[in-house]
Amino acid sequence: MNIRKAAASDAAAIAAIIIPIIREGTTYTLDPDMSESEALAYWMGRDKKTFVAEQDGVILGTYYMRPNQAGGGRHVCNCGYMTRAGATGRGIARGMCEHSLAHARLRGYRAMQFNFVVSTNERAVRLWQSLGFEIVGRLPAAFRHPVHGDVDAFVMYQLL
Amino acid sequence: MNIRKAAASDAAAIAAIIIPIIREGTTYTLDPDMSESEALAYWMGRDKKTFVAEQDGVILGTYYMRPNQAGGGRHVCNCGYMTRAGATGRGIARGMCEHSLAHARLRGYRAMQFNFVVSTNERAVRLWQSLGFEIVGRLPAAFRHPVHGDVDAFVMYQLL
Repeated sequence: MNIRKAAASDAAAIAAIIIPIIREGTTYTLDPDMSESEALAYWMGRDKKTFVAEQDGVILGTYYMRPNQAGGGRHVCNCGYMTRAGATGRGIARGMCEHSLAHARLRGYRAMQFNFVVSTNERAVRLWQSLGFEIVGRLPAAFRHPVHGDVDAFVMYQLL
Repeated sequence: MNIRKAAASDAAAIAAIIIPIIREGTTYTLDPDMSESEALAYWMGRDKKTFVAEQDGVILGTYYMRPNQAGGGRHVCNCGYMTRAGATGRGIARGMCEHSLAHARLRGYRAMQFNFVVSTNERAVRLWQSLGFEIVGRLPAAFRHPVHGDVDAFVMYQLL
């Protein structure tokens, strides 16, 4: 798997990954009805560095990194990861997260924070824990899950 | 104390409150060097409802309310409060927070979340606790305080 910075020409491949996940609305707090151009403006926004993971020239995952806060909080970064439908379970999210941790250290970030990990996304919670993240906060009923109703969300954090 | 929605004509009075606090950089994760117009664009942005607290026609405090997340997280609101220098200790922040809790219920929000309460801001932590907020998360060394160095920040939360 090769992970590299996303180029503008990757937009269509990135949209093909992120739009189904946004439409499903079970893991990210994004408007499920946002347009493709709004979704790309979010995922590839100027406040973010966006990466793609490709295998044999096919883009199977994408992630972004940004400072989680400004001012006195800008040494903590935040990332979001999405894997292409049908390509999950192949270590792509793990590979992207490992890449992001290394890249964050390289850029001088001192910690990484996930602000909102939906508690029913158990595979993600376990994956992040296996990569060194701890649950440092629990937000009661903070996510209205389209299937499970109101569920908790976790704040996860790792010093770098 | 009268609390009302902010008008565009309140911008100068709001700037007089928020700019010194942003410049000090000890309580909010905003760039201390941001311009006045950037600060006002943030505080009075279209994603927010902005209020002012006035006494005898003088604006002594301001707060904003916004959805803390989109999509499945939009039933949780987030607020920020600032009191004019020299007017602290007079119950203005308490009054604004009480107003915001009532307003949030009125607008159908189900919870209120503060994402980043700097742990050294002890007066604020105690005030929010006295108004029903709980510390639901601790972010280790997430804030680089200009005086105290790296300090923790709290995530505070209240179901409505």
